[in-house]
Amino acid sequence: MNFTSDNAAPAHPAIIEALARANVGHAASYGADAMMERVTARLRDVFEAPDAAVHLVATGTAANALALACLCPPWATIFCHRQAHIEEDEGGAPEFFTAGAKLTLVDGPDARIDPDRLDASMAHANRLGVHNIQRGALSITNVTEAGSVYTSEQVARLADIAKRWNLPVHMDGARFANALVATGATPAEMTWKAGVDALSFGGTKNGLLGVEAVILFDPEKSWEFELRRKRGGHLFSKHRYLSAQMDAYLTDDLWMDLARAANARAADLARGITDAGARLLHPADANMIFAEWPRAAHRALRDAGAKYYFWPGDHSLDGPDEAPLAARLVCGWCTTETEVGEFLAAMKTSPAIA
Amino acid sequence: MNFTSDNAAPAHPAIIEALARANVGHAASYGADAMMERVTARLRDVFEAPDAAVHLVATGTAANALALACLCPPWATIFCHRQAHIEEDEGGAPEFFTAGAKLTLVDGPDARIDPDRLDASMAHANRLGVHNIQRGALSITNVTEAGSVYTSEQVARLADIAKRWNLPVHMDGARFANALVATGATPAEMTWKAGVDALSFGGTKNGLLGVEAVILFDPEKSWEFELRRKRGGHLFSKHRYLSAQMDAYLTDDLWMDLARAANARAADLARGITDAGARLLHPADANMIFAEWPRAAHRALRDAGAKYYFWPGDHSLDGPDEAPLAARLVCGWCTTETEVGEFLAAMKTSPAIA
Amino acid sequence: MNFTSDNAAPAHPAIIEALARANVGHAASYGADAMMERVTARLRDVFEAPDAAVHLVATGTAANALALACLCPPWATIFCHRQAHIEEDEGGAPEFFTAGAKLTLVDGPDARIDPDRLDASMAHANRLGVHNIQRGALSITNVTEAGSVYTSEQVARLADIAKRWNLPVHMDGARFANALVATGATPAEMTWKAGVDALSFGGTKNGLLGVEAVILFDPEKSWEFELRRKRGGHLFSKHRYLSAQMDAYLTDDLWMDLARAANARAADLARGITDAGARLLHPADANMIFAEWPRAAHRALRDAGAKYYFWPGDHSLDGPDEAPLAARLVCGWCTTETEVGEFLAAMKTSPAIA
Amino acid sequence: MNFTSDNAAPAHPAIIEALARANVGHAASYGADAMMERVTARLRDVFEAPDAAVHLVATGTAANALALACLCPPWATIFCHRQAHIEEDEGGAPEFFTAGAKLTLVDGPDARIDPDRLDASMAHANRLGVHNIQRGALSITNVTEAGSVYTSEQVARLADIAKRWNLPVHMDGARFANALVATGATPAEMTWKAGVDALSFGGTKNGLLGVEAVILFDPEKSWEFELRRKRGGHLFSKHRYLSAQMDAYLTDDLWMDLARAANARAADLARGITDAGARLLHPADANMIFAEWPRAAHRALRDAGAKYYFWPGDHSLDGPDEAPLAARLVCGWCTTETEVGEFLAAMKTSPAIA
Repeated sequence: MNFTSDNAAPAHPAIIEALARANVGHAASYGADAMMERVTARLRDVFEAPDAAVHLVATGTAANALALACLCPPWATIFCHRQAHIEEDEGGAPEFFTAGAKLTLVDGPDARIDPDRLDASMAHANRLGVHNIQRGALSITNVTEAGSVYTSEQVARLADIAKRWNLPVHMDGARFANALVATGATPAEMTWKAGVDALSFGGTKNGLLGVEAVILFDPEKSWEFELRRKRGGHLFSKHRYLSAQMDAYLTDDLWMDLARAANARAADLARGITDAGARLLHPADANMIFAEWPRAAHRALRDAGAKYYFWPGDHSLDGPDEAPLAARLVCGWCTTETEVGEFLAAMKTSPAIA
Repeated sequence: MNFTSDNAAPAHPAIIEALARANVGHAASYGADAMMERVTARLRDVFEAPDAAVHLVATGTAANALALACLCPPWATIFCHRQAHIEEDEGGAPEFFTAGAKLTLVDGPDARIDPDRLDASMAHANRLGVHNIQRGALSITNVTEAGSVYTSEQVARLADIAKRWNLPVHMDGARFANALVATGATPAEMTWKAGVDALSFGGTKNGLLGVEAVILFDPEKSWEFELRRKRGGHLFSKHRYLSAQMDAYLTDDLWMDLARAANARAADLARGITDAGARLLHPADANMIFAEWPRAAHRALRDAGAKYYFWPGDHSLDGPDEAPLAARLVCGWCTTETEVGEFLAAMKTSPAIA
Repeated sequence: MNFTSDNAAPAHPAIIEALARANVGHAASYGADAMMERVTARLRDVFEAPDAAVHLVATGTAANALALACLCPPWATIFCHRQAHIEEDEGGAPEFFTAGAKLTLVDGPDARIDPDRLDASMAHANRLGVHNIQRGALSITNVTEAGSVYTSEQVARLADIAKRWNLPVHMDGARFANALVATGATPAEMTWKAGVDALSFGGTKNGLLGVEAVILFDPEKSWEFELRRKRGGHLFSKHRYLSAQMDAYLTDDLWMDLARAANARAADLARGITDAGARLLHPADANMIFAEWPRAAHRALRDAGAKYYFWPGDHSLDGPDEAPLAARLVCGWCTTETEVGEFLAAMKTSPAIA
Repeated sequence: MNFTSDNAAPAHPAIIEALARANVGHAASYGADAMMERVTARLRDVFEAPDAAVHLVATGTAANALALACLCPPWATIFCHRQAHIEEDEGGAPEFFTAGAKLTLVDGPDARIDPDRLDASMAHANRLGVHNIQRGALSITNVTEAGSVYTSEQVARLADIAKRWNLPVHMDGARFANALVATGATPAEMTWKAGVDALSFGGTKNGLLGVEAVILFDPEKSWEFELRRKRGGHLFSKHRYLSAQMDAYLTDDLWMDLARAANARAADLARGITDAGARLLHPADANMIFAEWPRAAHRALRDAGAKYYFWPGDHSLDGPDEAPLAARLVCGWCTTETEVGEFLAAMKTSPAIA
């Protein structure tokens, strides 16, 4: 019963097997391995984007920061949600890789950027010419940090605003597969057809050891990306081990199957806990649930061995039985129906809930 | 018969097995995994350095650049050999991570820094106060880029010069194990006992998929390192897969065994080719050989399927049979006696050699 | 009748005379001129800070950005008001000089930081360790961008919060003299006695051609400041022309006299326009007035030749006579009673006001 | 008798007068002053470059670093002479403003870049693709740091090499007027007609208080320059005082007159000291002389009150009478025939010379 994080989950066995298969003989280094060619072809196919440039890195922070550095000059600002991962959880990597660009924080419910606020924010940013930080890029996180999901139409609406200001659009898709499962959009619909120029296509949270693809739908910046990746220490000499992971991930739709499983478990869990009286704090659209319920039930869950994070702030289980406490529950590709069942059973043993 | 690069070699099977073993259940993310504790303890033990800070990254460039950024401020210069990897092969990563520090290039035969030139270079660097770039750090590569090795005494001599100028010392040990095998020095003797403050302890070129440890013998900068690593996108969420590799590498002296094998094959090969009439361009102290021999023999080797790089410059096999052409031959942990034998046999078939 | 900006005002004649006097014979360059010694001594005296380090630069942006770079590492954030000059008007200079630090924006009425929000913001910033941007420094602007002033007690309250989080405090004193005049605080009371570690001591807006002093009350970072200034291209070879300006500025309390004049004119003007029916948008504590009044009166003022900026946003004079429009009026050391009188007279001719 | 530096010299009186004249009433700030329009028109005229972009900054380091940052991306290298000011005397400013570009040092006699070495250096720089620092720009200093001058043909030869590698060319013209006087080339011939893309057009060393123009012959990067200047803290609010200096400098060919005077005095001085037995270390083409002569004569000069720097290295006057010691003598616009005469007279009193 571990719902702490999709980062704490193991990799899918097929990925380990792919590594073992790739571990034979010599292979060209630094991205020139034959498997990388196949990965590129597969992703172009998946995204209906025959010209897209594809590059692999090992962490989501690297994917985001390198992509943004290609889109936004040092003297400009990246518009993103206040709770975006690039603002809250990457230790200043976007600022580092862009050589000092700013992040302009836009609000909106459920960690989704409010279109009107985005427009106002862009209008404000650069109203006095050289004195102001310039407008740089828009970054959209899908699945959001609150577990909600943008539909492709919602993405398009934000991207349209950015385009009116002549700005490129980045999508942080650390949980991209989960967003597709949640919305039914195709990869192309969710990205370039909606106006996205660069995508961080996540794999790590969805069953890989550590690989993300950066997809540049306009390949013009591809060489710049390569130079930035090298200089950022993110070009792997034994690149085949990144390629092998991504290749297996894309084989037979494994990536979508894993996300489907995670989302399905989260849906079961969300239904179960709301039935049990918990209150969802955000729409549980994908594989993350933010909800609150009485402390007594938290205590019962702890005693039953359930693991998850309180979120945010107050970490103390102390307090009256009925006092609510918020938590984050994350399902991964590996979360089982049994685990969900045990969690719900434990929750229901609590008198405060029942 | 592949002597192109230790980066093109596969990982040792024990490493893949360790990944498979680590791939069970949930594990704390971002370096808080239990295996990382063991890695730290093992490396402290190996280096007789109970207080040393240990951090893992996935590429040698990241290891070097992050370590140097902790040692050298943006307004200072890093003294290194003209052929150092940080100067020639890292795409400007040291400049990026230090936020604009300079590299001051020092010459010396066989890619080893000449002590007198180092001292003169340090004296020159900062003679006019605020106008000059300041003296920052010394970086020594061992095994060097020419395949030669510094003894621990030679390291100490360079480090002493740095200390006289109050400068910290970094060692790029991408092939550290090979240097130990070549010299017989202990890890401690080759590093902190000789005056090294920070070591990039390589694993990738010696049998791992992609892991290097940065060892800070004075742990004072450990937290700064962590902040820089995070911000550089080099902190792995599923860190256990780095820990597992390094743990297996350190188990039962695997790391030294692999280096011993590589060095032994290179010694056989060096002996064989010099016996066959090739001329060594640098001492083949470890697992790399730089040598030249007649084009006819190169052509014979090509026909026999031998793979290696010409080095540097002229890449054309065309030319008179007896005209020499230089090459680099790298042995890895996986190079077999059979491969070496076949190479030497092919070489000897050439009339120009015989 | 020019109330556009203290940046559009001329320099005080005594400053030009000082330049002429300094322009005799050779003088040591790069800050080693004899006049700089006197400037340092004078400022230490004025601030009752015998150990303070003093450095001159030519622009306020350079002063702020260099000072902040000495206080805040690249992986940390500077807390400031949302309307702070460093956020709104310096084109990203703080991000550039700090090598990528962030600015965290805190709200509060009249461009003054609200203490509770500051504390909450600092608590939020770094709650998850290495993943978050770290807490770096607090920057307070006095006079604020809204023309209001912090008392030294208000400064101390904010600085106390910063100190509780172990953060250094910077003051952007582009209009420092005006803040002293407004509050009656001594230079020491407004700065180090209240917890300020580094001050941008403005001269340009108060009668100089272009000189600001950075005062580091703890001189420990003085050498780092010099290195950063040089590397930022802000060390003047013919430094005597900066020294001469600052020296004249400090002679016979000229700097305070000029601020007194500007504040007095602004007070007259604020009184006059409110008497005439205008509404102050912020307290007009120093030499800047933000107010709104009917469009008809704006038109009358325009016809009379008055110059000032609408602020912010709607720049159109079109609209109903009685529809209010906001403006910023700035008085400088050179604003005359006659100008103020003419402005008020012109305003009163408008039927909408009367 | 002060031959220490053109940075220690005063400004020309006409410049102070121009400042006084400019100091009347309000003026548009941040470069929008009317005088700046005239400066731009004048410089376009002088350079026969009607489309050139012109921007003013206050220091030579800012001019060079900002210009180079517009020409060279962070992952590339600037080719310059080993003794170039940007390498030796700017405290790392080029690395700072370019966000980490490298400087590749090329040798050549008399601080002039050797064309063959330049070509070889460019060929070497980027031979392995993404692993190497990329080729960025060429920077030529004229007058050189050794006092020699490139003819426009020599500039063209170096620029041609750069163009073959598709690289832009920068000229550090801190002493540009002196180079024109020395060669008789027109401003256009020495710059864009020879292949120079961006010029740091010096004023400070030639009679101004502190102003340099950056001239971009292709104005495409003009807006980027403005953004970089602002963000570097180099945009002056009271910009009129920069414009006024440059305007006066360009009026009635003052800039050329001042350089003519300085070069003439240096020519007299060089002739005189070689007649007296000194040995020139570099051609004294412009206003700087590098020469060595016996210590006895140095002592005689010191006793007569002559001021100049020993250059480089050994600063001790101690030693045998006849032992030579090298020195740098700089003439400025203000150096008088009397001073030169006194210097030569003092030199000749020395028995070691006579």
